Amino acid sequence: MTDFQKTRARFRIPDGVIYLDGNSLGPLPLGVEERVARTVAQEWGGQLIRGWNSAGWMVQPRRVGDRIARLIGAAPGTVVMGDTLSIKVYQALAAALAMRPDRRVILSDSGNFPTDLYMAEGLIDSLGQGHSLCVVDPEAVEDALTDEVAVLMLTQVDYRTGRLHDMAALTAKAHALGVVTVWDLAHSAGALPVDLAGAGADFAVGCTYKYLNGGPGAPAFIYVAPAHADCAKPALSGWMGHAAPFAFDPSYRPGEGVERMRVGTPPILALAALDAALDVWDGVDIQDIRRASIALCDLFIERVEAACPALVLASPRDSARRGSQVSFRHPQGYAIMQALIDRGVIGDFRAPDALRFGFTPLYIGEAEVLAAVEVLKQVIDGALWDRPAYHEKAIVT
Amino acid sequence: MTDFQKTRARFRIPDGVIYLDGNSLGPLPLGVEERVARTVAQEWGGQLIRGWNSAGWMVQPRRVGDRIARLIGAAPGTVVMGDTLSIKVYQALAAALAMRPDRRVILSDSGNFPTDLYMAEGLIDSLGQGHSLCVVDPEAVEDALTDEVAVLMLTQVDYRTGRLHDMAALTAKAHALGVVTVWDLAHSAGALPVDLAGAGADFAVGCTYKYLNGGPGAPAFIYVAPAHADCAKPALSGWMGHAAPFAFDPSYRPGEGVERMRVGTPPILALAALDAALDVWDGVDIQDIRRASIALCDLFIERVEAACPALVLASPRDSARRGSQVSFRHPQGYAIMQALIDRGVIGDFRAPDALRFGFTPLYIGEAEVLAAVEVLKQVIDGALWDRPAYHEKAIVT
Repeated sequence: MTDFQKTRARFRIPDGVIYLDGNSLGPLPLGVEERVARTVAQEWGGQLIRGWNSAGWMVQPRRVGDRIARLIGAAPGTVVMGDTLSIKVYQALAAALAMRPDRRVILSDSGNFPTDLYMAEGLIDSLGQGHSLCVVDPEAVEDALTDEVAVLMLTQVDYRTGRLHDMAALTAKAHALGVVTVWDLAHSAGALPVDLAGAGADFAVGCTYKYLNGGPGAPAFIYVAPAHADCAKPALSGWMGHAAPFAFDPSYRPGEGVERMRVGTPPILALAALDAALDVWDGVDIQDIRRASIALCDLFIERVEAACPALVLASPRDSARRGSQVSFRHPQGYAIMQALIDRGVIGDFRAPDALRFGFTPLYIGEAEVLAAVEVLKQVIDGALWDRPAYHEKAIVT
Repeated sequence: MTDFQKTRARFRIPDGVIYLDGNSLGPLPLGVEERVARTVAQEWGGQLIRGWNSAGWMVQPRRVGDRIARLIGAAPGTVVMGDTLSIKVYQALAAALAMRPDRRVILSDSGNFPTDLYMAEGLIDSLGQGHSLCVVDPEAVEDALTDEVAVLMLTQVDYRTGRLHDMAALTAKAHALGVVTVWDLAHSAGALPVDLAGAGADFAVGCTYKYLNGGPGAPAFIYVAPAHADCAKPALSGWMGHAAPFAFDPSYRPGEGVERMRVGTPPILALAALDAALDVWDGVDIQDIRRASIALCDLFIERVEAACPALVLASPRDSARRGSQVSFRHPQGYAIMQALIDRGVIGDFRAPDALRFGFTPLYIGEAEVLAAVEVLKQVIDGALWDRPAYHEKAIVT
């Protein structure tokens, strides 16, 4: 197993902080500051408009996409960066629906992240063809897959509980029924091994500010299976997805392969930050990450259950069915989390009652897990959460 | 008239460069480096996930939108940032069409930027309701406005020629016929006075990497007239546009006013760069900018026509009908522009034959105009463009 001492040294985490919220926003990798500064001063400031060619800005979405492809079991040239995850969900879902014009059902589950469901609602409304969004319990997805379903749209790892779907099995069943699949990898990419090509996934999307540590609002990615890449309809047909953006043709012609999923001008400063952040992965085997992550999560569950009986595990106990995060329920979850954060243990809260903790061996080790449990025990045993300030709701919870 | 010595000192332009391409990518304002560095190191690195509240990240799209509102004649609270211009075109057009369900024609012109037309094509295809995109010559727009048109979608300033539409007159005629208007301000915002409220514009969109100097791929903006803000349908209905993003409701409910046009997680590093770039405008009157810009453009036209008779003016001669850029045609336009860039005079080329030069008094003065004309004359008189290297096409032209 990899020794993660090296990767831990590649992050700048403030003194006194145990950061268990990398599943929401990854911490700052060391090389990012210098890289962003260089992109601002030397590339933008020095090369000005020429940077689109000379600094390689125009090909960044594809080049960075290839770096992410390696982490999610995708071939080079099948992933491209841009926009936000919500936008990429829209594109993937629209393209998937266009492949099954004879069917009207989008199947998803209640563990999907709300924005995926919202974007689907908006798309359904735009299409006006009587599509419906069928949302079932995560455990009921397999049985709900029928030959009336056009698209199965799932987030592989549940944002609240960490429950992990079996991508290979669900994709295989979907395909047997003629269902097109859209996988959201928001809590998977960089958290655990993903094998898009092996599973035969049709479309996948994800964000890069969680386990990929790309920074707040970092660009999203989209994957299109090679078999669909030259026929998929991008829906959001922008000039950067055109076959010849600088021909300024009056009509749209989709670009080659996944390039067509590009939309507008790429966000160069954000791509620079992400590109530098991905250096963390050089020499890291995601299988090693997974083994270590499971050990950390198992240890956390064991120690929390022993130390804090008032907390109820909300995540699957079976590590094979869990991503890289652990959630516990408590009626005072919000205030408890504020008290924890005040003491340097940073996780987050998800309504109505979940305390959520993310673990990645990239920068978290056993010592941090044990220390976090100790603080959690103090907060609960001493009712330290029972202060008015800890109940004040922030904009972002 | 304002003395622009102060604003010129607020930009970092490389020695030996005369930068006449701020209409494509504005140069680096001085405060940006420090601000971006701070956002990366202190906010992301130091505050981590807490930055969404403590560093004000979550309200940045609205706060920065208010700063831009001031420059385009819009009231506070009517402009929000995010995504790219292409995405914002899609949202504005979708919302506008939804306001006229009884009509099927989108009217635009051949001077519109291609991505606006491409996004309209994609939307029409998604809607599948038999809408058509009618593209006429810019001069024919007024006559083509009829009561069969649902939406008039125009870029106010033509990206190739600089031709300026009369927003107030066209909007008034559109409204008299029941037509909803979508204005693209890509080449207007920061270039000349825009009065969205005065003109009664319904929707407007724009990018911020041109005359607003926000950096490569800086976020776009969208304006929704107050009268429509609480009924406009966002189409791209993402969680950040939800009435309560952190309630994680299973169904979408649009947020208040223009907030509903937010989609995914905002791009914080890019917003920080843009926010710092907007400091340039403190104390600047856009009316002064306009007067000085006209003087620079008129001077450039006069001197180029005297010095380079082989170049044919492609822009309106009448400054009242022109934005803040000037284009000349020449069959060897591409190679001539490469030769100019090689000599430090940076403009750009737009197919098939336009040499394009942008002027803004923020950092360009008479001396730069005269020096640029001198280099242009040398390049053409000496046929200095006639080298193989100047004919090699780059990815971005």
